[in-house]
Amino acid sequence: MLRERFPEFCSSPSPPTEVKMEESVALEMDNHVLDKEEGCYDNTEAAFSDDEEEVNNKGKKREFRFHPIKEAVLEEPADITPYLDQLDDTMKEKVLQLQKASDTETQCEVMQEIVDLILEEDFDSEQMSTLASCLAELFKSHFRGDVLPDEITEESLEESVCKPVCLVFRNLCTMQEDNSGFSVLLDMLAELYQKQPKIGYHLLYYLKASKAAMGKMSLYESFAQATALGDLHTCLMMDMKACQEDDVRLLCYLTPSIYSEFPDETLRSGELLNMIVAVIDSTQLQELMCHVMMGNLVMFRKDSVLNILIQSLDWETFEQYSTWQLFLAHSIPLETIIPILQHLKYKEHPEALSCLLLQLRREKPSEEMVKMVLSRPCHPEDQFTTSILRHWASKHDDTLGEHIKAQLIKNNNQPRKRQSLRSSSSKLAQLTLEQILEHMDNLRLSLSNTKNNCEYTQYYCNVYIFKLKSQIILNQIKHRIICRNLPEKKNGPAHSLLLR
Amino acid sequence: MLRERFPEFCSSPSPPTEVKMEESVALEMDNHVLDKEEGCYDNTEAAFSDDEEEVNNKGKKREFRFHPIKEAVLEEPADITPYLDQLDDTMKEKVLQLQKASDTETQCEVMQEIVDLILEEDFDSEQMSTLASCLAELFKSHFRGDVLPDEITEESLEESVCKPVCLVFRNLCTMQEDNSGFSVLLDMLAELYQKQPKIGYHLLYYLKASKAAMGKMSLYESFAQATALGDLHTCLMMDMKACQEDDVRLLCYLTPSIYSEFPDETLRSGELLNMIVAVIDSTQLQELMCHVMMGNLVMFRKDSVLNILIQSLDWETFEQYSTWQLFLAHSIPLETIIPILQHLKYKEHPEALSCLLLQLRREKPSEEMVKMVLSRPCHPEDQFTTSILRHWASKHDDTLGEHIKAQLIKNNNQPRKRQSLRSSSSKLAQLTLEQILEHMDNLRLSLSNTKNNCEYTQYYCNVYIFKLKSQIILNQIKHRIICRNLPEKKNGPAHSLLLR
Repeated sequence: MLRERFPEFCSSPSPPTEVKMEESVALEMDNHVLDKEEGCYDNTEAAFSDDEEEVNNKGKKREFRFHPIKEAVLEEPADITPYLDQLDDTMKEKVLQLQKASDTETQCEVMQEIVDLILEEDFDSEQMSTLASCLAELFKSHFRGDVLPDEITEESLEESVCKPVCLVFRNLCTMQEDNSGFSVLLDMLAELYQKQPKIGYHLLYYLKASKAAMGKMSLYESFAQATALGDLHTCLMMDMKACQEDDVRLLCYLTPSIYSEFPDETLRSGELLNMIVAVIDSTQLQELMCHVMMGNLVMFRKDSVLNILIQSLDWETFEQYSTWQLFLAHSIPLETIIPILQHLKYKEHPEALSCLLLQLRREKPSEEMVKMVLSRPCHPEDQFTTSILRHWASKHDDTLGEHIKAQLIKNNNQPRKRQSLRSSSSKLAQLTLEQILEHMDNLRLSLSNTKNNCEYTQYYCNVYIFKLKSQIILNQIKHRIICRNLPEKKNGPAHSLLLR
Repeated sequence: MLRERFPEFCSSPSPPTEVKMEESVALEMDNHVLDKEEGCYDNTEAAFSDDEEEVNNKGKKREFRFHPIKEAVLEEPADITPYLDQLDDTMKEKVLQLQKASDTETQCEVMQEIVDLILEEDFDSEQMSTLASCLAELFKSHFRGDVLPDEITEESLEESVCKPVCLVFRNLCTMQEDNSGFSVLLDMLAELYQKQPKIGYHLLYYLKASKAAMGKMSLYESFAQATALGDLHTCLMMDMKACQEDDVRLLCYLTPSIYSEFPDETLRSGELLNMIVAVIDSTQLQELMCHVMMGNLVMFRKDSVLNILIQSLDWETFEQYSTWQLFLAHSIPLETIIPILQHLKYKEHPEALSCLLLQLRREKPSEEMVKMVLSRPCHPEDQFTTSILRHWASKHDDTLGEHIKAQLIKNNNQPRKRQSLRSSSSKLAQLTLEQILEHMDNLRLSLSNTKNNCEYTQYYCNVYIFKLKSQIILNQIKHRIICRNLPEKKNGPAHSLLLR
């Protein structure tokens, strides 16, 4: 039955690996069209896919869905015919040779001849787009299977870049950038990129995996500038996105070099980080963390990490936890990111609050930390501030006491009007005496409610509150003198402290 | 139309809150039966449910699904008829009064009269099971809505325990345990528990929420022993499981008291912890962590935490992360759980490895830590050991060096035969000289591969390897003398070191 349906394929001589793959893909696509309503995964696909990666398969499925209407089988031999007549005779002959070539080695040889033709001075650049269309059609199957070998060794990597399309990359790597041929070849790649966007991440893979490309990662920048996108950042993001959709394993493999080669494009990009954490599983997260600790990967830098963590507050729970785990694998001091506390709302940002709580509890409190923690608005259900103050009180009570005192003195020197006191909870990082007192009163209650060994803390807590009571009474007297006509605000924490 | 279908309900006088709820539930159940194929959530439910809790709603849906065939509305008045004749006249009259009572206050009054009847000396205990069936039927609606008030305040809590069923709990709380009535009432509850298992967690809730029950949590133990289960542990686990399925918010609310009141049943129970982490969201996780830090909740104890963390290795990713977050909120020294490293397999336990990596990197390495880390089998893709050694080398190189030396000396004093060397990777925590060398060689490679400031570490690493080379040569010479006929094992790390 297959023989009847696909005479073009079955009459051809038994093809070696590369072509076998094309055939199988063709069959599979046909299956796909016929049995569209049947399950998700095709058994015929299994032979060429990494079964471990479901996302991977998803990526691939998407690719096939892209052309579901065309008759898949008719595509292969028919597609380059319309282009052939637009090529000059020499080129046409080579392209036909390429189409007929049955093994990779021959394909590579012919491809090198095509590259040589392009580099000749009398090459008519009008043909470039047509040639790119032909190549995109002929190399289609190369963009389908997994790029990364199952087991990563020097040999398997070297073998994986022995594809005709990689010949273009290799030629570029061996050329000087000021060579006129360099830009011609780049133009060819740019044309190819328009027909086959996957070529972008294939180039990134080649530059990382091939020995011949050692130290040539910057070539990608030239490529990006030659494309219609014309810009490294956009191009890199598009290619990483395409890679994320097609192959998460490859995304993880590329991540360390992308971050180290293009720090300006990556280290400030929440977008890229989200692409990664949105698809990795916990094994890949652990691998990336090891890369960070081994010094092979830097994903955060002091100057941009705060901004990226703030961006991450809108992400999914697991994405946020992964982001924090990756951040914590770096050796960036916690002070750098403490200001994020101003952005963390109770109920809305529990992931970040949990992670920060666990980090703060390991630190000796600095003045800035205490200030930030006290600046959180008081909310009866939000126990973040009380939790961390209570912990610090039991471990570093002297230090904590000094810092609280400093905050009290600072904020007491600038008395606010009642109006501003009332709206203080909505203003972030705007400490008021009343707010500090409320936090301290919660701390005092927490310490007295449970058995604990912080007698000294409890004592100083009470002493502070006592001192503050006197201070507040003084302030209130001053205040009443100033605005004698305003009614007394009752039931505030300061008021309840005064009544005790 | 509603009036036609439910004359019993619509003709009754406008009922106060409690009964209104019953009506609405009835309507909702009817909707549910009629429009079963329509969406998941009912708008009529919204008024009585906590919209934030999806799991909660799921729990409720499950409950309704339990009786989908019966005509819901006919249930209420019809169900106790078969039981009534088995009750003596006084009791029958009271039960009918209870059925007719339209407001909670009256219901509570009648319920107290029923309790008084039970406590009378001439009460025929043969009736107990029948009475329990009646009460289970009549109180059905009380077990449907949310137990926990939306906003938790002293008042709302006190109001939430003003239900007729809570009268039984209250009577028990006020009685001495040696009072003969105490066991009679417990028997009644045990009968009720068989018809309505939710009563178990309702009792837990009452004991936590009601002021009248302050300090009486141990009553639950007596209850558990009176039930058919007859055992505190089983009963507690069943009730917490029922609570987990019905209402996650309540589960979180109960957690702190359950752990503090029943430490023997809870602190060693991976089962209970898994119940919790399997359903909480990140907000609830953050709340529980705050409880831990506030001293209101102890979920791990030094003697059992290792065992529980080992159990958690089979759980889902988020369950494991939550478990680690909760563990880290406690102040248990890392040394306690370091032996878990022996159980952590690369690829199988990435969650635990990530969490442990982040903890170890903050510690100054102890001898035990270094031993455990070096005991991990060498696998080219498993970079855990190299990552942490590299980090320690850059921060605590002297300490690390001393500990490695100690391990080398210890393991060098007990030379192993080649046979045992070969199988070493499968034996956990069994250090061999060869394995230490392989880890150190990986470390050396990692340090030389990248730019770093650990020149001293690199130097001592090389010096060690040099010293070891000499040691190994000596050992090999000894070894060859002992077993001259065995062929040389090539390509091992020690061998490759010797060749350098």
